[in-house]
Amino acid sequence: MENNQKKNESITRQEDDFAQWYTDVCKKAELMDYSSVKGFIIYRPYGYAIWEQIQSYLDKRFKETGHQNVYMPMVIPESLFQKEKDHVVGFAPETLVATIGGNAPIDDRLIIRPTSEVLFCEHYAKIISSYRDLPKLYNQWCSVVRWEKTTRPFLRGSEFLWQEGHTMHKNEEEARTETLKMLEIYDDLGRDVLAVPFVKGRKTDREKFAGAEETYTIEALMPDGKALQSGTTHYFGNGFAKAFGIKFQNREGKLDFPHQTSWGVSTRLIGSIIMVHGDDNGLVLPPYVAPIQVVVIPVAANKPGVIPEARRLHDIVKAAGYRTFIDDSDKSAGWKFSEYEMKGVPIRLEIGPRDIENKQVTLAKRNTGEKITVKYEDLVPTIDALIKQIHQEMYQKATKYLQEHITEVRSVEELDEVLNKKGGYAKMMWSGDEESELFIKDKFAATARAIPFNQMPFDDKDPINGKPAKKVVLFAKAY
Amino acid sequence: MENNQKKNESITRQEDDFAQWYTDVCKKAELMDYSSVKGFIIYRPYGYAIWEQIQSYLDKRFKETGHQNVYMPMVIPESLFQKEKDHVVGFAPETLVATIGGNAPIDDRLIIRPTSEVLFCEHYAKIISSYRDLPKLYNQWCSVVRWEKTTRPFLRGSEFLWQEGHTMHKNEEEARTETLKMLEIYDDLGRDVLAVPFVKGRKTDREKFAGAEETYTIEALMPDGKALQSGTTHYFGNGFAKAFGIKFQNREGKLDFPHQTSWGVSTRLIGSIIMVHGDDNGLVLPPYVAPIQVVVIPVAANKPGVIPEARRLHDIVKAAGYRTFIDDSDKSAGWKFSEYEMKGVPIRLEIGPRDIENKQVTLAKRNTGEKITVKYEDLVPTIDALIKQIHQEMYQKATKYLQEHITEVRSVEELDEVLNKKGGYAKMMWSGDEESELFIKDKFAATARAIPFNQMPFDDKDPINGKPAKKVVLFAKAY
Repeated sequence: MENNQKKNESITRQEDDFAQWYTDVCKKAELMDYSSVKGFIIYRPYGYAIWEQIQSYLDKRFKETGHQNVYMPMVIPESLFQKEKDHVVGFAPETLVATIGGNAPIDDRLIIRPTSEVLFCEHYAKIISSYRDLPKLYNQWCSVVRWEKTTRPFLRGSEFLWQEGHTMHKNEEEARTETLKMLEIYDDLGRDVLAVPFVKGRKTDREKFAGAEETYTIEALMPDGKALQSGTTHYFGNGFAKAFGIKFQNREGKLDFPHQTSWGVSTRLIGSIIMVHGDDNGLVLPPYVAPIQVVVIPVAANKPGVIPEARRLHDIVKAAGYRTFIDDSDKSAGWKFSEYEMKGVPIRLEIGPRDIENKQVTLAKRNTGEKITVKYEDLVPTIDALIKQIHQEMYQKATKYLQEHITEVRSVEELDEVLNKKGGYAKMMWSGDEESELFIKDKFAATARAIPFNQMPFDDKDPINGKPAKKVVLFAKAY
Repeated sequence: MENNQKKNESITRQEDDFAQWYTDVCKKAELMDYSSVKGFIIYRPYGYAIWEQIQSYLDKRFKETGHQNVYMPMVIPESLFQKEKDHVVGFAPETLVATIGGNAPIDDRLIIRPTSEVLFCEHYAKIISSYRDLPKLYNQWCSVVRWEKTTRPFLRGSEFLWQEGHTMHKNEEEARTETLKMLEIYDDLGRDVLAVPFVKGRKTDREKFAGAEETYTIEALMPDGKALQSGTTHYFGNGFAKAFGIKFQNREGKLDFPHQTSWGVSTRLIGSIIMVHGDDNGLVLPPYVAPIQVVVIPVAANKPGVIPEARRLHDIVKAAGYRTFIDDSDKSAGWKFSEYEMKGVPIRLEIGPRDIENKQVTLAKRNTGEKITVKYEDLVPTIDALIKQIHQEMYQKATKYLQEHITEVRSVEELDEVLNKKGGYAKMMWSGDEESELFIKDKFAATARAIPFNQMPFDDKDPINGKPAKKVVLFAKAY
């Protein structure tokens, strides 16, 4: 077991240094590696496979709800980018700009897309002319570039992978419905796939997306008490449509501007999974995104018959539809236990000579460490049940943590207590004035994360400026 | 039928102007649109969906053969790019270079990846140290940028979508096997999915990839007599490994350099599909990549009961697993016939009041125009059979054309006849000297497309320089 200890020791303990723990896990579980350009990470197979699971779920949901995939250019001419004022102000400071093509200077310099609103708008202006052309429900999977000063794997990168949906609708109602519908799909992803509960709500004007009329968000809560914005959907009204001259003839024969949405989630979700579920032994992956759901480890593998029997069981579990891996290398069982624990594999199947004799295996759950002995004939049904159970346990644990960390505050002192000591969300009655947000930002380095859909007023005045309260808002420090 | 005629007339006839026919089809079948930056196209839903089918087939084959997906940064520091001499000479003239990030100049300027060999090598140098780490079988799906002067949709773009496999092996034999194995998978894709027959072979030294020891190719033949390089696989030996310091301890405990491959296909394959199969009425899509395999068109749709019955049949065909679409819009049946003909949908299902009375439908095959009447109870089995049959017919037609356009040449006059009149491949005995290639390039603007695997020498001297012949080579004009 010496190996095992070594492995565990190589990860910083969460309570010693949470940020270092996170980086250790990212690197040592082989989710990513750094490249030679700051903020541009390498998505290694184990990390990319998690993204593929997320893609697979969302792509199916998008298509079922009538969306179509497209691919837009990765470059945006500077002149085009500047067409919508708020948008350019929001993104210009963090753009990567290409100025040379084929050894010659480029006249209209090319911005590597930080987001593709303007590209979609330029295209929509060409292909939308009648109500018959609406709605347009497009999505694209790609990478985007935002030149960031401070970068962390998955959480904030100069390049990251994402999907961006961009839709056009005949009226405001339809567009608003779309904005909320996509937020629901993201929330489903959290609940049913990532085992990550989100707070859902609207952003304040200060926090909304550059150019949007309204931004909705799903926010996850990390164990260090900070919120992580995990996905957003935006209602644009017809501001971009006007800026880009997108018009259509409505059913009454009149020219009208379509109403627009966009929405996206990114590889940041991987960061959310790592932090919400991980522990001092490494990753704990929710079963429905785990690249390996069941790892088979032969014990006393040098004894005759063990490896063939382990392979046979591996094949049975695999044939039942699970992502299964057998480690039949010559490393010690202890090393392997520790390795796949660190990699967060939900179920470990151990099989040794005594098990074979008794026609049974041991199954160990990564999330709780529980071990159970299972007869061969019960193997697949037990795994069926465990996968569901592990997912539920992980979701419930995270939900409990979230609920315990939404704290009503009625004074600056209570704000301080929550934001600087307890962690999590300070639930506060807000006057709707930016001055309160600025005060909290300056004093506590915290921001309004969401105006939750579930509004349960508990006081009548804003504790910062004493003005009448209009909304319940969740404030928190955030990634 | 006036609408129908209008539609057909809007596409240039192939024999009038093949290049214009191609562009018309790309645009009017809504496969793509131009963006405001030359050579950066928009992949519209109908075009992107073809790429998704190709991805889906290949991704499965790659994973079945042990490959893993990763994602590397989209930028390459100029200093890193220059590490392998031949490689940089080959790509430098067509790079897009980012020089400004976050409003500040970038010291080590960033090349937008034209291909990712150097990124993979830099990473492999960090993660490979023992024979236990080999092989590494990585692939990535992404877009790449090559700043091209002359661009055409799908065929040659400044940005295109592709996959690039990059693998590392413990010895030459294993790497060479990989190079040929991936070429076989590409060939399977052509035969089983795209209905496009390829010539397979090796590239001459002049035509091989920058930095490769050997390049293998699949070449498709277009109806205008020009070849289209549709995919390549490269064996690199250990040249990059040496340049990047990638070393491993072999089983004997000695330090060794791994042997490397790379391989890729791109959205160029969509161009190949369009040209190989298309006709004067537009696209003709092979059934296994067609985004819509069966289009249901109600005839006399205003008669009571027609649309509900058409929808019912649509649902039956869809439930049988086919990508199915019903056009129940208020456009005329004639317009619709023409529209989906242009879009190359393999099977059109027509249903009108008389059909309903007789419990039958009409099925029309896009590739031949044949129509058959089918009883309700035979609908799904007939579609099962038709899909297979259409694929076979399309593949056989293209194969016949290819075979008829490989012509043995024994003199410069015969070369001229094939390259400038008949079209297709001039099959020539070659001395192995670059002078013959240069002569053919200068005189006929044609290149050595492949040294085919199937070598059947038919003469003993090279007709260009009169020297002893070493290889059978296929020369052609090419895209």
